[in-house]
Amino acid sequence: MVLQNFDTLLKKYAKLIVEVGVNVQKSHTVVLSIQVEQAPLARHIVEEAYKLGAKQVIVQWADDSVSRETFINADQEVIETVPQYKIDEINDWVEKGASRIGIVSQDPDAYAGVDNDRLSTFQSAMGKAMMPLRQATQANKVSWVVAAAAGTQWAKKVFPELSTNEEQVDALWDAIFKTTRIYEEDPVAAWVAHDKSLEAKAAELNAEQFDSLHYTAPGTDLIIGLPENHHWEGAGSVNVRGERFMANMPTEEVFTAPDNRRIDGVIVSTKPLSYSGNTLENMTFTFKDGKVVDAKAEKGEEVLKKLLETDEGAKSLGEVALVPDSSQISQSGLTFFNTLFDENASNHLALGSAYAFNIKGGTEMSEEELEAAGLNRSLTHVDFMVGSDKMNIDGIKKDGTRVPVFRNGEWA
Amino acid sequence: MVLQNFDTLLKKYAKLIVEVGVNVQKSHTVVLSIQVEQAPLARHIVEEAYKLGAKQVIVQWADDSVSRETFINADQEVIETVPQYKIDEINDWVEKGASRIGIVSQDPDAYAGVDNDRLSTFQSAMGKAMMPLRQATQANKVSWVVAAAAGTQWAKKVFPELSTNEEQVDALWDAIFKTTRIYEEDPVAAWVAHDKSLEAKAAELNAEQFDSLHYTAPGTDLIIGLPENHHWEGAGSVNVRGERFMANMPTEEVFTAPDNRRIDGVIVSTKPLSYSGNTLENMTFTFKDGKVVDAKAEKGEEVLKKLLETDEGAKSLGEVALVPDSSQISQSGLTFFNTLFDENASNHLALGSAYAFNIKGGTEMSEEELEAAGLNRSLTHVDFMVGSDKMNIDGIKKDGTRVPVFRNGEWA
Repeated sequence: MVLQNFDTLLKKYAKLIVEVGVNVQKSHTVVLSIQVEQAPLARHIVEEAYKLGAKQVIVQWADDSVSRETFINADQEVIETVPQYKIDEINDWVEKGASRIGIVSQDPDAYAGVDNDRLSTFQSAMGKAMMPLRQATQANKVSWVVAAAAGTQWAKKVFPELSTNEEQVDALWDAIFKTTRIYEEDPVAAWVAHDKSLEAKAAELNAEQFDSLHYTAPGTDLIIGLPENHHWEGAGSVNVRGERFMANMPTEEVFTAPDNRRIDGVIVSTKPLSYSGNTLENMTFTFKDGKVVDAKAEKGEEVLKKLLETDEGAKSLGEVALVPDSSQISQSGLTFFNTLFDENASNHLALGSAYAFNIKGGTEMSEEELEAAGLNRSLTHVDFMVGSDKMNIDGIKKDGTRVPVFRNGEWA
Repeated sequence: MVLQNFDTLLKKYAKLIVEVGVNVQKSHTVVLSIQVEQAPLARHIVEEAYKLGAKQVIVQWADDSVSRETFINADQEVIETVPQYKIDEINDWVEKGASRIGIVSQDPDAYAGVDNDRLSTFQSAMGKAMMPLRQATQANKVSWVVAAAAGTQWAKKVFPELSTNEEQVDALWDAIFKTTRIYEEDPVAAWVAHDKSLEAKAAELNAEQFDSLHYTAPGTDLIIGLPENHHWEGAGSVNVRGERFMANMPTEEVFTAPDNRRIDGVIVSTKPLSYSGNTLENMTFTFKDGKVVDAKAEKGEEVLKKLLETDEGAKSLGEVALVPDSSQISQSGLTFFNTLFDENASNHLALGSAYAFNIKGGTEMSEEELEAAGLNRSLTHVDFMVGSDKMNIDGIKKDGTRVPVFRNGEWA
């Protein structure tokens, strides 16, 4: 490891994830999902969480290679069935109001070449099993954070020009530490300030209450309706216990839910998307009355089609997020092949489920009420990137007035 | 890694574990328990098991540091409760007749300094939850193997004289590969031959049907009764499906069950015992009518006392095993601080549960029938080493005739 004091930085990072990410308090249960390769970070997270008084830290280990072997070789019944004891375990986390820490470090192409039917069968079975947890997460019933760690295969893909894998991993850690403000003397204070500035931007948009947004860019001309009483959120969220948390680290976005009945036009993706161990590139979506009626991709089209077939909700949008092209991640010029980073370099949208907190009173609404308000419901939620320095966005008010929101990829 | 072709050797080792260890057949379910540090070995085992047609390979990852943090910090309720979904999962493995591969690589002192009450509370809760699985294992209802991998902390303890941790790990892998015959051109064939020679020794002892064994050595004078129709086993076992497997790799022992009502005298341990993350040294046990009535240890006495308090069965013996002092592991002169190795360097006994297959017809008997036959029942099974080049053992027949079995640590 070329990075000086790597272990000290890693410990600082673990502390930030635990304190600001999920804001661990006395007697909280914490569930950490992480690849076995990232054991040193896992150990720091476990230690820091217990220091803050956690009641239990449950570590869910995973390994890309083992998962790939399973997807390729395991019996079909294994792929399509989530055992009841797994479902019970997930529900137990929900019941305990467990905070969730997800550390992503996966090889973007971990499952390349794996039979798509088997992959999507598994995704769909797992999606169903995870539904109560997803709903709890999306309604901010629990604190959760997604952060990253530099996986060796992932680092290879981001920095192919570096000659050794050690240098590649080092460069990726450096990018992670930069974008999560770990080099600051007090990363926690830096995050509090960042949180405030994004909150201010969200407040401006909430005051406007646009009826829709009009996206234009090369290849893109799309109108996205916004529901009445939609609510823009910045970096930080507050869970039902009143505890502030940071769902993504890094994060540069403000985002809300679209009205899933009023999306019309065409939009093209501007960055590769790593989904389910495959890389999807240059996608074009045509929407009519809120639904994708045509979808193409220059790379990974079959995987994209499978994603859209997950359920009805997978064909519509659940998130509209704004990120200026001048964001630190965008300016790094890197393509991370990882949504956590790439979405924070670019305006993006998500296919699938909407967050209940993106409409006023939403966390108290039933699934039916959310649906009636235009909030998309689905087993899936997949972000894809559409921003560039050529993108303009107008806000359209109920009376037809147009207000410039983005010009050439920047806040207008 | 100084070892040449390390990955090739590791793959050969994985293949041996899967083929000879648990003898994976088409449609078997395999459960692999392994530390995250040993991911490269885990990946090879998963791959080799699927190659042989496994239906599913379930990997149960663990990490010494995370477990230690949990034992020290988690809420008492967490320590003393095994959640129902975990119990259901374990029972599901039993129901599926899953083969179990356990890879041991733990730091012998991983839990040194952890509160003994909390450790034994956890052990006892887990012991109860694992009972159906232990019974299935001990009755050979499923195939199982315990094998080793060179953990960094473990290697440090075995080779303190080597200057770098890399050299230590290397030396330990070398010892593992030597004792498991991985350097042989055909390790599978070498194991078949080894298996046969131990079987022949077991057959001799089965023909004798001694009523008891009399152990003498410095500090030791103990008589151990053997039940009627007791059965000595060599390296290999056969599961209820008729498939041959190798429960320990390495293995140099032949072993049977004692009569847990007829053990009298004193015996001293001759090697350190790593139990529950603590090292126990120089233990002395006094037995009367099958039960330990006094126990001392120069190191780890408190941990030993907790072990004996697990249940009534923990105070008696469940295994009598014979290993000549000339065994390869003994001759290496190393103390491994790991039972899998140290027990194969020395005559040993086990506190706790006996194996049902060590009495004729035992795998078909109920728990009550086993108990009536003198087979010890317990939540635990902990081997400890008593052999040395000064140990003599006589076999005593029903009519009082004495037959020398061991002289100066060797087969007589």
